[in-house]
Amino acid sequence: MAFQDYFPVWDKLSAQQQERVLGSLVFRRVKKGALLHSGSAECTGLLLIKQGQLRAYILSDEGREVTIYRLFDRDMCLFSAACIMRSVQFDVIVEAEKDTELWIIPADVYQSLMEQSAAAANYTNELMGSRFSEVMWLMEQVMWKSLDKRLAAFLLEEAAIEGTDELKITHEIIANHLGSHREVITRMLRYFQSEGMVRLSRGMVAITDKEKLKSLQSDE
Amino acid sequence: MAFQDYFPVWDKLSAQQQERVLGSLVFRRVKKGALLHSGSAECTGLLLIKQGQLRAYILSDEGREVTIYRLFDRDMCLFSAACIMRSVQFDVIVEAEKDTELWIIPADVYQSLMEQSAAAANYTNELMGSRFSEVMWLMEQVMWKSLDKRLAAFLLEEAAIEGTDELKITHEIIANHLGSHREVITRMLRYFQSEGMVRLSRGMVAITDKEKLKSLQSDE
Repeated sequence: MAFQDYFPVWDKLSAQQQERVLGSLVFRRVKKGALLHSGSAECTGLLLIKQGQLRAYILSDEGREVTIYRLFDRDMCLFSAACIMRSVQFDVIVEAEKDTELWIIPADVYQSLMEQSAAAANYTNELMGSRFSEVMWLMEQVMWKSLDKRLAAFLLEEAAIEGTDELKITHEIIANHLGSHREVITRMLRYFQSEGMVRLSRGMVAITDKEKLKSLQSDE
Repeated sequence: MAFQDYFPVWDKLSAQQQERVLGSLVFRRVKKGALLHSGSAECTGLLLIKQGQLRAYILSDEGREVTIYRLFDRDMCLFSAACIMRSVQFDVIVEAEKDTELWIIPADVYQSLMEQSAAAANYTNELMGSRFSEVMWLMEQVMWKSLDKRLAAFLLEEAAIEGTDELKITHEIIANHLGSHREVITRMLRYFQSEGMVRLSRGMVAITDKEKLKSLQSDE
């Protein structure tokens, strides 16, 4: 499978536009943990994932993280090219959560593509709308859901992404996803364990009662 | 001043596109408190404010509100036309915060404009980026700032918008802006009063020490 198969508006571009994009593409393989983009001061370009998993997060002044969305195969990361969108005024950090293969479209190439092609501009709109929706979902969680529900939702989501109920993840990393502190997460996980919903061991959280976690997550 | 002067991409449209937009426009005067849009099930269209003030907010299952952004003269409301953006999956409610004069561009007319014109599509992108930035700012506030800082920031913002330090606003309305409860806001305002930062009376919050509020707002 080539870039053309991964880029949804490919067929709507002119031959000249296609050539310009192909000629400027960079293909990269990055290891789990690699930092791909660290805020709007960088002009990394658009990242189109061939295969792998990226995490986009924001950082507080005190260094606390919170995951705002994740990107999987075929997803495109827009905010690593925030430099070309002057109305976008926030800093997103992007790191590889798994070993990842991706293409980078240089920001200036994408910018002129958007200016020339309504199809490319509308596709960009659609991408931004998707990310916006994810952030609004998160906002509603943070505003109105207590941490136990958010933790339950996170563990269930992880299990779905990883395809296993035995999650290799530290309390620190969970805290970084949820914008919380390690100590707070450890306390809540111990409570979950005492309720029979998870079993804890070093670097591992095993889900032992999915139904109970689900009912906690959706409980009002 | 006519619609043409308020719509930034007007000059980049073809004569035919201009005609289509002008022919479909609806001009409306609404009273303070009027509900203009109530979620993605409605296809209200884009709202371009000639003069006035709108508030966009989200609602929890239990009926709690939180303001996500406000719109002023010349601003355009995009999410009242979320029906034409299939990737946008959240419900925003829009109400008039002051008596407002506005134009409504029907959603289908705007959609075909975006499909035909890269300029219109890129302008839409820019609008979405601005709103996204406001929501990200709010998210950072909610994640990492305590309610006293958020309340201080809100009072200072209100004073700037209204051009007065004597704010005619109830504790209930402040709670609705901040996604909090009236009782919580009342308690915090009484604390502010005891610290000499505000003076409370019926339906009124008067700022008495702006510098102290500012230092509280930015205090880490």
